[in-house]
Amino acid sequence: MFKAEIKSDTLKGLVNVISTLVDEAKFSISGDGVNLKAVDPAHVAMVDLTISKSAFESFSADNGTEMGVDLDKMKEMLKLAGSGDVIAMEQDESQGRLIMRVGNITRRMNLVDTSGMSDPKVPQLSLPANVDVAVSELQRGMKAAESVSDHIALSADQDSFELFCEGDTDSVSLKLDRSKLVSITATSKVRSLFPLDYFSNLVKAIPSDTVVKISLGNDYPVKLSFSFANGNGNVGYLLAPRIEND
Amino acid sequence: MFKAEIKSDTLKGLVNVISTLVDEAKFSISGDGVNLKAVDPAHVAMVDLTISKSAFESFSADNGTEMGVDLDKMKEMLKLAGSGDVIAMEQDESQGRLIMRVGNITRRMNLVDTSGMSDPKVPQLSLPANVDVAVSELQRGMKAAESVSDHIALSADQDSFELFCEGDTDSVSLKLDRSKLVSITATSKVRSLFPLDYFSNLVKAIPSDTVVKISLGNDYPVKLSFSFANGNGNVGYLLAPRIEND
Amino acid sequence: MFKAEIKSDTLKGLVNVISTLVDEAKFSISGDGVNLKAVDPAHVAMVDLTISKSAFESFSADNGTEMGVDLDKMKEMLKLAGSGDVIAMEQDESQGRLIMRVGNITRRMNLVDTSGMSDPKVPQLSLPANVDVAVSELQRGMKAAESVSDHIALSADQDSFELFCEGDTDSVSLKLDRSKLVSITATSKVRSLFPLDYFSNLVKAIPSDTVVKISLGNDYPVKLSFSFANGNGNVGYLLAPRIEND
Repeated sequence: MFKAEIKSDTLKGLVNVISTLVDEAKFSISGDGVNLKAVDPAHVAMVDLTISKSAFESFSADNGTEMGVDLDKMKEMLKLAGSGDVIAMEQDESQGRLIMRVGNITRRMNLVDTSGMSDPKVPQLSLPANVDVAVSELQRGMKAAESVSDHIALSADQDSFELFCEGDTDSVSLKLDRSKLVSITATSKVRSLFPLDYFSNLVKAIPSDTVVKISLGNDYPVKLSFSFANGNGNVGYLLAPRIEND
Repeated sequence: MFKAEIKSDTLKGLVNVISTLVDEAKFSISGDGVNLKAVDPAHVAMVDLTISKSAFESFSADNGTEMGVDLDKMKEMLKLAGSGDVIAMEQDESQGRLIMRVGNITRRMNLVDTSGMSDPKVPQLSLPANVDVAVSELQRGMKAAESVSDHIALSADQDSFELFCEGDTDSVSLKLDRSKLVSITATSKVRSLFPLDYFSNLVKAIPSDTVVKISLGNDYPVKLSFSFANGNGNVGYLLAPRIEND
Repeated sequence: MFKAEIKSDTLKGLVNVISTLVDEAKFSISGDGVNLKAVDPAHVAMVDLTISKSAFESFSADNGTEMGVDLDKMKEMLKLAGSGDVIAMEQDESQGRLIMRVGNITRRMNLVDTSGMSDPKVPQLSLPANVDVAVSELQRGMKAAESVSDHIALSADQDSFELFCEGDTDSVSLKLDRSKLVSITATSKVRSLFPLDYFSNLVKAIPSDTVVKISLGNDYPVKLSFSFANGNGNVGYLLAPRIEND
């Protein structure tokens, strides 16, 4: 059983982040809130999102509830909602459907079979560099990077964090020193290369007033962590590195 | 002979409604105003639009004037006009042209041959349910419906009016009770099914502050009526029902 | 050597005008400023643009500096800049690159080989009619003209300036009398026909508060002249006439 109401902005934020990786997702629901883990089809990135029941306007659910949701259908409903609107959701267990309501509009959508959806294990990583930065600082850089290359190098040392893209004829760098960062700690100089599209899609999906923690190593996965819904929601996003050609 | 000036917003509203059904239309003009009747090529819907000379800034015409107009060309001229602008129109009988003026721009456009355009007879229907509703209430529902199905059921009883779309996996409903309606009268519970694209295109073409009268029966055509140009223009729109598969 | 800072709006205006004719351009730089001459690949139009060092926030350059620039790359950087932003540019002679900076973003772009770029000779024309007109008066006319024909006739006499497009079925004219013009002088009635796309692309690229001087003859090239950057930049644009079919 699952029945809840949530502000459309909160649900939008959640769906935007997940849908950079997958089209369908399994919502794992308990009496305390909702968890979502997803790996993209190419197994390059993983997202682990938790949202507490405090982020909802109302919330009641049985432990162990699972719902497979087509995120595009959820997005279609979200497009009908204004930014202050509340969205009502209810699981119809007998029909295998999710009922969503926005104002006078009700949509009943078939749930997706979750039996083929794995529960990815989230690896625990200890990463030597940690950068806290307003995502808006990164978002402009993404636009510049896309025209130049399809991979992006992230590097950090004690004093600055840099995004660097190198193409055949051009290169683009976005260098942020301490004055542009919320905080930075790095026990050594580190650098890893990543697929630009994954990184860029995530950065663009994050609400622009968010502070993101970027945890970085040397030729190692990057972890991006941030909270949303006034701290009642948390996202951990892991992205596998690319091997650099010499 | 036809020579008139009209506010661009009024002409825009008129052209938007007609062009949901046809690309070319015959304007039947008398000394009192203009009438336009059109049936779409598939003979599924009919529009009957009348606009009195009081809706014009200036108006002079001979009884029995007919002009076949390419609506796309009229739309192109309307795009050049701001919302307060006045558009001047004049028939050039010797050349078979319509002359339109917006500000310093003059366009002379060939009229379309009207000999192949029939004069549809508008059937008089007596329909048991009548709903008056602000079109803005319907417009959000159209967006939700389009992703689900290509037909839409309209139903009414004494207390509420409902739009319902059912697809293979999902359904969408927009239910409006008395509190969301201007008025509703229904002698019995009625329901008819319609092609969604026709209904949706019309609903989206109607200015959002318009109150529309929806006249409905059981497996019967629906009639939508509304006025524009401060009551100096009137539209009746008839849409044939679809037979429901059982 | 070339190193300069310039307001993004000024650089945008310059690039927009040049890129209506060419994708790559040779910047000829001296200690006084920058000159750009370009002919489109079909040799139908020519632009001669000069911008004084006073239009820059800072400027230093050796006489005889030349840089071949891919204008699309410059546009991509300009998209990252807000309207108040300053853009820094620096030639990296050893690498054959141009370094552009907007905020924290740095792009290093390969310069284009200029050896194949000719230095067009700008002909000196004495044209009998001169019209000074706010470009905004012309811009609305361009939209109307495009749907009708692919060429445009410009004509002038002592009292008015007219743009006229004639297609197979329709014609559009924009007639501006003295009250709509800044000034007009014509020793005789003149008229020439031009390819609409060139004329229209230029008119649309000019900032809308600009006064353009149109110098016109009889079946002769048209010259459009205007200044930008508070008079610190000047553009001369020549467009060859089309021969009218009788």
